[in-house]
Order: sequence, then structure tokens, then C-alpha cells
Amino acid sequence: MVKVAVDLMGGDNAPGEIEKGVLAAVEENETLQVKLYGMKGAYTGDHPRVEFIEVTEKIESDDDPVRSVKRKKDSSLVRACKAVKDGEVAACVSAGNTGALMSAGLFVVGRIKGIERPAIGTLLPSIDGKGMMLLDMGANAENKPKHLEQFAVMADIYMREIAGRTNPAVGLINNGSEENKGSELTKETFKLLKESDMNFIGNFETRDILSGDADIAVTDGFTGNVVLKTIEGTASALMSEVKDVFLKSTKNKMAAMVLKNDFKAVKDLLDYRQYGGAPLLGLNGNVLKAHGSSDSVAIVSALRQAEKMAASNAIEKIKERIEENA
Amino acid sequence: MVKVAVDLMGGDNAPGEIEKGVLAAVEENETLQVKLYGMKGAYTGDHPRVEFIEVTEKIESDDDPVRSVKRKKDSSLVRACKAVKDGEVAACVSAGNTGALMSAGLFVVGRIKGIERPAIGTLLPSIDGKGMMLLDMGANAENKPKHLEQFAVMADIYMREIAGRTNPAVGLINNGSEENKGSELTKETFKLLKESDMNFIGNFETRDILSGDADIAVTDGFTGNVVLKTIEGTASALMSEVKDVFLKSTKNKMAAMVLKNDFKAVKDLLDYRQYGGAPLLGLNGNVLKAHGSSDSVAIVSALRQAEKMAASNAIEKIKERIEENA
Repeated sequence: MVKVAVDLMGGDNAPGEIEKGVLAAVEENETLQVKLYGMKGAYTGDHPRVEFIEVTEKIESDDDPVRSVKRKKDSSLVRACKAVKDGEVAACVSAGNTGALMSAGLFVVGRIKGIERPAIGTLLPSIDGKGMMLLDMGANAENKPKHLEQFAVMADIYMREIAGRTNPAVGLINNGSEENKGSELTKETFKLLKESDMNFIGNFETRDILSGDADIAVTDGFTGNVVLKTIEGTASALMSEVKDVFLKSTKNKMAAMVLKNDFKAVKDLLDYRQYGGAPLLGLNGNVLKAHGSSDSVAIVSALRQAEKMAASNAIEKIKERIEENA
Repeated sequence: MVKVAVDLMGGDNAPGEIEKGVLAAVEENETLQVKLYGMKGAYTGDHPRVEFIEVTEKIESDDDPVRSVKRKKDSSLVRACKAVKDGEVAACVSAGNTGALMSAGLFVVGRIKGIERPAIGTLLPSIDGKGMMLLDMGANAENKPKHLEQFAVMADIYMREIAGRTNPAVGLINNGSEENKGSELTKETFKLLKESDMNFIGNFETRDILSGDADIAVTDGFTGNVVLKTIEGTASALMSEVKDVFLKSTKNKMAAMVLKNDFKAVKDLLDYRQYGGAPLLGLNGNVLKAHGSSDSVAIVSALRQAEKMAASNAIEKIKERIEENA
């Protein structure tokens, strides 16, 4: 049995889609047990492997991250993290306020000793079908070279232990491919990564972000957040243009019908639901952020990922590596 | 007559496509005269309004920007900028080394007094068809709030005077939409832009980058460069997936034939050639960077833009506004 805590109240489609996803996940996997934290009446299901725990508060998407976590101690998000801290569950999942989840990660679950800044690692698609990790995607607004080096170490372990990747290629997001390019931050980080044991492939331009050339793309939290949103914005603008073409005339509609099934693959490539959630790396417990607009499919996928995290030795390995580097 | 200098040796498709573009542009516009700087034998054409000036050197795409400009004084790129400085032409266009063009802009053409950092303003498409300007796209690796404020002022004038935009909306690229979000740089810049006379619409998330909601998106040179390349990377990954679908089977190929013409509009949306070049803003002369992979169509488009720059009062207006703000 693997026990996972789920925040029923977090996300744009909570609680309905979260519940639906949880019930589908326990149906899919007989070894999964869920502790489901939600407010009175939010859970309408009934399943022997879903334990509903009633809470009195919830954190809103626009709540101040630090303040809300400190004040709303009986919120579903904080209680799910508390369950990780207390060892009641092996992992927790929330589609709620990202900043609040990171705050709860820091104040409730706690950091791994030696990790200066935890990071949020987003799994992105790549056209070779393997997928890759972009981090930090926004836990930090400013970073130092040492932080970025630790991000790379944590992602390296995640991709090996949880995504099953052998010798992951680590790229440093930069504004040019030459070694001497970039800001003070990227120049210093380049040196640290070059000296490390990791499979560092050098500076990485985001023109290749979805190519699959890098398994891990490391950057500061500001840039990572902007890159992620630029990908989303470009993809949605393009797909909306494509849709306009498909609907433009009867003739086009008929042609689009022919292509429909194959086109699904293009859409799937950019479907965050297929890639699961974003692990919070550097915490002394498994905390997974599901996409804010998660539907039940995304929640099933996030729960699969949480189980893999729970079954792995990633946290222990991170501790070892950080101690070696200290 | 408008005289424009063109660097025949710069760009991936130089000199062939540059020459072809220049000849098409002078055919299209009877009031355009071109001073064409190139090495011996590079120009094979013959046109009464194209004056070929033989130079002995060229700057390569991987040359060090500052050093190459200082040493290769008889290169086509430097000579084209010198023609602007000496008042022989009203503008110059190069598809060559971006860093070298900016260096020549700084050392040969010179900065506008009071401008701390010139910037490169890239014109991007938007799904509403208007297009917008993203800057800085890479002239600077680190910036201060004052630089970003000046970028916004210069882009505001460019979009009014050259792109014919009324009261352009200025957005500040940030990792969240709330006022208190972001790095020290974005927080301080937010204050400066809020106090300015510009039509500041606040923090701007790149999820909306191609929406057209902002006419101008301001950011530091590192982030701007990364955003631009992320758009290019995402678009090219998606278009390659779409192409795969179209070629997958005979049935798909036939359906694609039906959609072909309408699909061209989707591709055009992302075709840099339709949007002309990237003006170097803050220089005491009109310098335009054409895309490195420019073909003749892109060069025609860049020459149209250079003419508009030459005909405008943008540089004078920038001088006035900088003096007012000093």
C-alpha cells in the first residue's frame, strides 16, 4: 500500500474534478490509498481506500502564500503537507496556490539540510516524445549560481530515480551557446556545472527547448516561469489559429475531420495532463504540484507520479549528494 | 530620394539573397537609393539606383562583436554604419552579427545623449494581426530599472512614429500579474512605469505574449532574448508536428492539400519576414538589424521599414523625451 494525501480544495476545478480523479486513480491502482483533505460536503464519493478528512479552511488562489499558510493551519493544503511531515503518507498532491504549497513545503514539511533554495521542477513535452524537466519554474525570483547548481543536482536525481532516465543531459538556459555568454549568474553557474560530475551539455538556447536535446534545463525562477508561460502562450496562439483554419469553410471542416485523430497527437504533445505535476524539489518529503487547471485526467496522472516519487529513494540520494558537495 | 546603406556580406544567405532583395526593393520603390557595401565580386547586379562600394573585409557571425568592429574598419557592416554617421545615408540595414552591429552602432554611429543603454526592439506577430514590439531582445545581459524605463520610452516613440500606433499599451514582462510580483528589477521598473506618462498596463505574463494585449513588452536583454527564442522554438516544434500529420498518409496528404492555402496564413503569422527587422533604439542614427536568416523577401521588408524610420522624426522625439526626463 502507498498512502498519498490529496488537497481536495485546490485548483480551478476543485473539488469536483479532484474527487473524480482520486476515485479513478484508486480504481486504476489497487495498492493506492488516499487521505483526502476537504471542507464539509466537498467529498461526495465513497471508496474503501479513500479516507475523507474534514477541514475548516481553504487557501484561495490569490491568497498571500506565506501569510495564508501561517494563518490557515486547518486548510486542506496545509493539512495535506502536515500528513507528509508526520509520516502518515508517503507523498501529497495539490493543484492549489503554487506559492502557498511551496510555503507549506518549507514551513511544514521542511527543507533538506544543505539545500539553500528548493525549486519547482516542471515536466515538459519534447518532440522526441521523451519529455524533459525545466526548473526552477518560479519558486524563486532571484537566484545565485550555487542555487542553480543544486537545482541541477536535484533534477538529475529526479530524472534518474523517478523518470528512469540514464545519464540525463543538463543544459543551462542562456542567451547564447558560447561559454562566455550571458549574465553574471549564468557565467558563474556555467563554471560550477562544468566542474560537476553531471552530464553537462553547456549553454542551452530555448530555441531548442522542446527538442529533447536536454533532459534538464536549468535556470533561475524568474526566467523559468517566463519560459514556461511563453511556451503555453505560443502554443495556444498557434492552436487557436489552426482551429480557425479548420472551421473556416465546409471544405476545411471536412478535411479537418480526416486529420482529426492524428491531430490529437499534436495536441497531446502540449497537454500538461500527460506529463503529470511539478515536483517540489529540495523538501524533506514528497510534495507534488498538479497544474492549476487540472481535471480528473491530470489528477490521475499526478497520483501515478506521486506514487513513483514515494517508491523512489530520490530524497535520500539528494541528501547524500548535497553532503558530498558540502 | 531616400538613401539607405545595406551590408551585402551579413546574414546566412549573403550575398545572394541580400542582392536579390535590394534589387527587388529599388524596383518596388522609385524613391529608394541604396549604397551597397560588399567585397569584390559579391555584387553581380546593375541598377542605376544601387551604388556598389567595394570593401576589403567582412565580419563573420561568430566574430567577437567589439573586437571585430574595432579591427575590421573596412568591413561592409562598419562601413554601412559609417555612412549613417557621416550623413551619407538616412538609415542602414544589416542581417549580420547582431552584437557587432550594436557595437558599430555604439562606436561608429553613437548613442543619443542621455540614453544609458541602447536596445534591440524586435517586432513580433500577434493573433489580432497588429503585431507588437518586444525589447530588449539581447543587446544587454543585465539591466537596471532606469534602462527598462528608457526602453519603454523609445519603443513608445517607435510604435507611434513608425508603426502608426495610437497610445501604445506598455506591458512589463513579469512572473505574475500582481503589482508586488517579481524580481527587484521588475518591482522597481513597475514604479517608474506607473509614474510615467505612458499607457502602462502593468505586469504582463508571457502566456499572453502573442495576444496583442500589449503593443510593447519591456524586459531586460537576457529575458527578452530567451522569450524570443522560446517563441521560435515552440512554434517550430509545433509546425514540424503539424507537418508530420499532413504527410502521414495519402488520405492526410489529400486533406492537407485542401487546407494548404489557409494554412499559409498560420505560417505567415510566425514568419519573421513579414515583420521586418529589429531597430536598434537609442542610437543617433537609424540602424536596422534584419533577421540572420533573411532571404530576399525579408530584405525588401527591412528596406521598407528602414525608409519609414528615415522618414520619421523618431530620433528627435527620443532626444526631446530623454531631455524632459533628465
